[in-house]
Amino acid sequence: MRLRSMKKILVIGGDGYLGWPTAMHLSKKNYKVHLIDNFSKRNIENENGIKPLFQIETLKNRVNAWNKLNQKKNKITFSFGDLLNHRFIYDELKKFKPNHIIHYGEQPSAPYSMAGRHQAEFTLRNNVIGNLNLIFGIKKYCPNTHIIKLGTMGSYGTPNIDIEEGFLKVSHKGRKDIMQYPFKPHSFYHCSKSADSINIYFACRTWGLRSTDLNQGVVYGVDTPETILSDTFNTSFHYDHIFGTVINRFLVQAAINQPLTIYGKGEQVRTFLNINDTLQCIELAIKNPAKSGEYKVRNQFTETFSINEIARLVLKAAKSIGLNGNIKYLKNPRTELLKHYYKASNKSFLNIGLKKRKLDVSFLKKTILKIIESKDLIDKKTIKPSIKWNNK
Amino acid sequence: MRLRSMKKILVIGGDGYLGWPTAMHLSKKNYKVHLIDNFSKRNIENENGIKPLFQIETLKNRVNAWNKLNQKKNKITFSFGDLLNHRFIYDELKKFKPNHIIHYGEQPSAPYSMAGRHQAEFTLRNNVIGNLNLIFGIKKYCPNTHIIKLGTMGSYGTPNIDIEEGFLKVSHKGRKDIMQYPFKPHSFYHCSKSADSINIYFACRTWGLRSTDLNQGVVYGVDTPETILSDTFNTSFHYDHIFGTVINRFLVQAAINQPLTIYGKGEQVRTFLNINDTLQCIELAIKNPAKSGEYKVRNQFTETFSINEIARLVLKAAKSIGLNGNIKYLKNPRTELLKHYYKASNKSFLNIGLKKRKLDVSFLKKTILKIIESKDLIDKKTIKPSIKWNNK
Repeated sequence: MRLRSMKKILVIGGDGYLGWPTAMHLSKKNYKVHLIDNFSKRNIENENGIKPLFQIETLKNRVNAWNKLNQKKNKITFSFGDLLNHRFIYDELKKFKPNHIIHYGEQPSAPYSMAGRHQAEFTLRNNVIGNLNLIFGIKKYCPNTHIIKLGTMGSYGTPNIDIEEGFLKVSHKGRKDIMQYPFKPHSFYHCSKSADSINIYFACRTWGLRSTDLNQGVVYGVDTPETILSDTFNTSFHYDHIFGTVINRFLVQAAINQPLTIYGKGEQVRTFLNINDTLQCIELAIKNPAKSGEYKVRNQFTETFSINEIARLVLKAAKSIGLNGNIKYLKNPRTELLKHYYKASNKSFLNIGLKKRKLDVSFLKKTILKIIESKDLIDKKTIKPSIKWNNK
Repeated sequence: MRLRSMKKILVIGGDGYLGWPTAMHLSKKNYKVHLIDNFSKRNIENENGIKPLFQIETLKNRVNAWNKLNQKKNKITFSFGDLLNHRFIYDELKKFKPNHIIHYGEQPSAPYSMAGRHQAEFTLRNNVIGNLNLIFGIKKYCPNTHIIKLGTMGSYGTPNIDIEEGFLKVSHKGRKDIMQYPFKPHSFYHCSKSADSINIYFACRTWGLRSTDLNQGVVYGVDTPETILSDTFNTSFHYDHIFGTVINRFLVQAAINQPLTIYGKGEQVRTFLNINDTLQCIELAIKNPAKSGEYKVRNQFTETFSINEIARLVLKAAKSIGLNGNIKYLKNPRTELLKHYYKASNKSFLNIGLKKRKLDVSFLKKTILKIIESKDLIDKKTIKPSIKWNNK
């Protein structure tokens, strides 16, 4: 395949947990990939004294190593910069003119956004104004570019009706409409994503931009066909109270023989997917783009579990390798419904060919063993949730 | 009534079209009123070379004149500052500890928010981050304070079902929920108000704050029992393409014998209310506050008109005083549905005693005569809409 016919992909947040594996995956599939990042996630790690368990190379080294290994013409390129600087993103769009943009470039931690005013403001400003600068740039320099924006299932909250994909058919007093599915976000992070979705939908219907909003569940796993080629290609495994997700926390706690900490009664239900299914979904979203003026929403997850179900699976994996394993219930630091209905659709991706991986005991077992190899690096004090949703 | 038992009201945006009349009205009703403003609206006037038709005094002079006239203990006080400076609003809340906050302090022009990236960013940042700083300040210094936040009917857009008040009872696949009414904003200004509503509702259910969101229609009129006491107490009458509303534009065009300019076919339907009914609603909202943890939404309007209906009423008024008067249809600079269903509820205010004023020919006639007295001050070039929603 010649460079000239290659589709060009801009990955915003290319240094991130998903951005980097996405970059390698698409590069391997013969897309021309350009990354941008402001390293705000590494800054937040420094600010909070946390770091991923497995060593992460600098982005520069990762990109160079990848381009050396992957002896093709489509080298990954990288520019350092911030979406809050609109001149930066305008210039990038003008020069690179991407066919698709994968927009991971947002502050992704719900607890961080709830830590205080500064963190809430940073989250809203970084995410909402960054996204605004991006859509103005697209309008100006590449209005036909397809924006694949990462949203979150958490924007829907836990409504008492089925969660559809972005829109809801409403019948009311004898009349009908199809309306944007109501938001009921869990945190200021989720509030920022709701605002983004409102703004980008507005831009699609007003300016004719084309966007796919991927409302993603909780992603687990760090091994993709590309990350396992070398330690240099590692992506971040966070188990701390800021960026760590529940599965990672449980796996680390099991690995060091500490009780799995469940917030509340563990009956909260959430959606999940394997990192390899994120990569699969991104590629499916590229191959099935929104049309001009269209704002398409796809819910991006494969399975639904309660926190208790996740804990039981992790305990089973732990016991299978001779670890003890028990559970400790903590007062929930978050404000969320403790018991609720939950049924969410993911038909949109199934309809275009998503093959689902399952979260199974053998995956969990393998991950625990991998964590045990690095267990001296675990910083136990960073696990405990210190951010409360309703701190006085 | 002694000062000690007076309810304290903080009016944010106290220099504005509604802020200043609200301040005088509440002061007269024996509330202790403190104003804050960052004068951003006067800045935007300067930036765009526009000004209100009738002369507006400095806020300092208005406040001093009012306190001189209104020989009571409850003097209106004023602090200059910006909600974007959280230290400022924290200090104000700490010192004043209001019982109610009337939050008018947002960039209010839809066309301004659509003029370009800078203006859209200013609108989102000023409104969303300002509101965020305010709710963090309330949480910290006066969590029992009732926040009356001005929203807009334009956040709902023009759905094909009835517009309810903030929430919608949804039946879906055999299950039910009451959900935040979906937003479909008309502009980035309306997007910012939608984000505010999501954030403040989140703060109410997470922190137990108490808020009333007033989704207001288009306000008309400048004469209140207080503004007419002296020219010093004037509030702003805008007829320009940035801050001027459709009624004001038509009245000015009629007064100078120019055709009333209708955007599109004039079949767009919007909600309206007299400025005196805004004052009545604010007082009703104060007397019927949201409870702790409650996010209450009241739609604040009295009547619904199509743009053509408004034009016909203004022409009738113009003809009754011997003016010609005709209509000119312009290409719509906005992206909006040209023909649509529209039925909105305002029961919430009617149920707590709102007495509606009507927009009638005699009011319009009186206003045209008043405009004619100042017609040499009209800057005709500022009327034409120069901001297009979908400029290339």
